[in-house]
Amino acid sequence: MSIKLYELTGDDDDRQFSPYCWRIRMALAHKGLAMTTVPWRFTEGDALKFAGATTVPVLVDGDKTLKDSWDIALYLDEAYPDRPKLFDSKQSVALALFFKQWAERSIPVMPVVIMDLFNHLHAKDKDYFRTSREKRFGKTLEEVGGNRPAALATLRTALEPARQLLATQPFISGAAPGFADHIFCGPFLFARSMSPVQLLETTDPIHAWRERMLDLHNGMARKAKGYPV
Amino acid sequence: MSIKLYELTGDDDDRQFSPYCWRIRMALAHKGLAMTTVPWRFTEGDALKFAGATTVPVLVDGDKTLKDSWDIALYLDEAYPDRPKLFDSKQSVALALFFKQWAERSIPVMPVVIMDLFNHLHAKDKDYFRTSREKRFGKTLEEVGGNRPAALATLRTALEPARQLLATQPFISGAAPGFADHIFCGPFLFARSMSPVQLLETTDPIHAWRERMLDLHNGMARKAKGYPV
Repeated sequence: MSIKLYELTGDDDDRQFSPYCWRIRMALAHKGLAMTTVPWRFTEGDALKFAGATTVPVLVDGDKTLKDSWDIALYLDEAYPDRPKLFDSKQSVALALFFKQWAERSIPVMPVVIMDLFNHLHAKDKDYFRTSREKRFGKTLEEVGGNRPAALATLRTALEPARQLLATQPFISGAAPGFADHIFCGPFLFARSMSPVQLLETTDPIHAWRERMLDLHNGMARKAKGYPV
Repeated sequence: MSIKLYELTGDDDDRQFSPYCWRIRMALAHKGLAMTTVPWRFTEGDALKFAGATTVPVLVDGDKTLKDSWDIALYLDEAYPDRPKLFDSKQSVALALFFKQWAERSIPVMPVVIMDLFNHLHAKDKDYFRTSREKRFGKTLEEVGGNRPAALATLRTALEPARQLLATQPFISGAAPGFADHIFCGPFLFARSMSPVQLLETTDPIHAWRERMLDLHNGMARKAKGYPV
């Protein structure tokens, strides 16, 4: 019985875009676990009630149902200890959790891609998205996305700690990718699914890292629906 | 032959204040290694020539001479593998290096304490410090330190990723301190050595963490010269 992953999806059933779901898609590939995706949209809250969840990812593995990408990652290493590890020690779990806290506050991709995202949403999600995000940002989507050059500059500056790190080692987690790399992938794979914008200069060490991530598992992420940037 | 650590020192020979040196002072205690401090001032560049260094920390361990706090930390785990580890795995080294990159860019303590620091510098360092820092900041020390409430607010906001982490686990490195904790200690022990200012609200999870760090090794850091804040 294969693993089922509920993932946030855009206009097409194969346009997955949630950075949180991408963490788990990458983690499942990392562990060599097959999965079936279940497309989910913002306005399909009822479909997650069985899991006690209101957001994705939700993962169903046999009789286990899990929500929250961090808890799912911990579960995968615990349930499948003989497969490649997402974390290699107790400290690495703790420090990856710091990385998560940083990444969730410090990678402002949304102002760069918000209008492309809006255009690629499923029709039934558009009203919900506009209303909820305009409330959150306190301005219209068009205002949030209205200065892309400035938003790009802000994003690139914010990435500096990761840039410095990736100038000295191939992955966030060292010589090989770990769950922190899958976390860091999230915003980039989110953007790539929705927008043709070039987030990174090609000379940026983060660009080279992203290429390495896109190459993993026979180009799994590179083949996903999106823009080849 | 005990380890010698060259440390940046203020007006008194026992007022060590460099955040980079504090990392190593904490790391040596972590590993249970005795050391002798060698007070060093900014204007004593010649005293480090034997190490090919221009800044501290410099560590001398028998016939080994090391500079750069990160390299010293790696050396200590390698040279003393049977003592408590600063890092517990390869991933933990990689992720602690991310933490270092973040910490060195994201903990703006200097504008909060700069005038207290200036007052506690050794007399022979004051001209050098004023000239070099005014050039770096593009304004006078008095201007850099001129709005302490704003600087404190900026600092506390910048600490948010660590705050979120420490709300869920006792140390940055998990259940026990690791080198990432010693890195994070640096700015707080720097401030404490020089200034009576209260950097953190007592309800802040980072405050509770700092208390735990001050308690380690029979209160080693708490007993150091400084202000009991």
